[in-house]
Amino acid sequence: VIIYGRNPVREAIRGSRAVSKVWATKNAAREEWVAAARPLVVAAEEIEARCGSSAHQGVCAQVSEFRYASADALLAAPAPFLVALDQVQDPQNLGSICRTAECAGATGLVVPERRAAEVTPAVCKASAGAVEHLPIARVRNLADFLLDAKAAECWCYGADGAGDTSYDSVDYGGGVVLVLGSEGEGLRPRVAAACDALVSLSLRGRIESLGVSAAAAVLLYEVARGRRGEAGAQ
Amino acid sequence: VIIYGRNPVREAIRGSRAVSKVWATKNAAREEWVAAARPLVVAAEEIEARCGSSAHQGVCAQVSEFRYASADALLAAPAPFLVALDQVQDPQNLGSICRTAECAGATGLVVPERRAAEVTPAVCKASAGAVEHLPIARVRNLADFLLDAKAAECWCYGADGAGDTSYDSVDYGGGVVLVLGSEGEGLRPRVAAACDALVSLSLRGRIESLGVSAAAAVLLYEVARGRRGEAGAQ
Repeated sequence: VIIYGRNPVREAIRGSRAVSKVWATKNAAREEWVAAARPLVVAAEEIEARCGSSAHQGVCAQVSEFRYASADALLAAPAPFLVALDQVQDPQNLGSICRTAECAGATGLVVPERRAAEVTPAVCKASAGAVEHLPIARVRNLADFLLDAKAAECWCYGADGAGDTSYDSVDYGGGVVLVLGSEGEGLRPRVAAACDALVSLSLRGRIESLGVSAAAAVLLYEVARGRRGEAGAQ
Repeated sequence: VIIYGRNPVREAIRGSRAVSKVWATKNAAREEWVAAARPLVVAAEEIEARCGSSAHQGVCAQVSEFRYASADALLAAPAPFLVALDQVQDPQNLGSICRTAECAGATGLVVPERRAAEVTPAVCKASAGAVEHLPIARVRNLADFLLDAKAAECWCYGADGAGDTSYDSVDYGGGVVLVLGSEGEGLRPRVAAACDALVSLSLRGRIESLGVSAAAAVLLYEVARGRRGEAGAQ
């Protein structure tokens, strides 16, 4: 796989993926961490051709396949703080949510195997490299995963504009799974039914909904705040 | 100007811009609000050619130029809740922040005239049409605007990863200006110096920073929460 962009390549080097080759422009190769990776110095056009994107910022790298984590291992962590995405298909949204989840100290993220964005190089870029550190698991069925999570003593909170619980009235201590649906569609009924509570963000404007990445950011930091100083908090 | 996408066109019709013509695909024209706009029914290719984007969702419209608000008028609102963006140049980020600001009940948004994204059709799209409702003002100099805001009894809070005030330890009542810098660069020194306090979001992960849209979402909702039930709150 060829990943591209400054943050994605730097975090891949810092993280656990095998990085077999780095290409950089003369300009990018002046940066200390790029130089330390002993890049092949090439023209920007060659980097763009290798990675297939113009958003490369002068650097790309050949790395091993992305390795997904095990959902069971995520649930086995002490009082985990997990994010589950139901049918989020836009790579920008997936990447952005991974970035915020890593910054908020989440334990990991869970996505369904089907009808969901995978961790492609575009997702690595949109995550600013967060996917190299945040464990991401794929599950066959998200509603079943939530039942497993509840059996493992996690509380599952679904984000739902029509939810009757205000997002900031909840005690987010202990094991928590924050469940977010796709922009537009929201949570599927079986997924919503598997949640312990549906939490909503107040909308005070004249438009119908927040973007899923923005809603994720508000909720992730609210959960993180509620966990400060706790044993299970990261 | 040709704007495109379902939310942007719908909000332009609901908002104050003059909409002189709407084009829609047969499919899109089945929706009630589209039909009510009496669109010219055309092929998707024609819509793409007219708006220059493939993200049109089957609808585009010819509308009057975007009209910026006056910064003085924003400051004259009772206890305004404003967002000021310092050199945010990415249309996606500007649009996303407008969308969240509108949802959080902000009074308006302020951007500098130079070195900042303008309200283009791409920004309308990224904002899901929020720019049709949220007043947006351009100012010659952002630091000078903050001095005006302070003279108008607003408190100016700059978002800064190195800030010594935790974002959730602040009383956000009264007039508030939330100041956000560009991804990567942050606030310019003169802008940071014009703020009353620099507020930071805790980073608990292994990467360096949150995206500016995500940071904006967390901060906007924290300010909104702090204003609930207040006279000036929207």
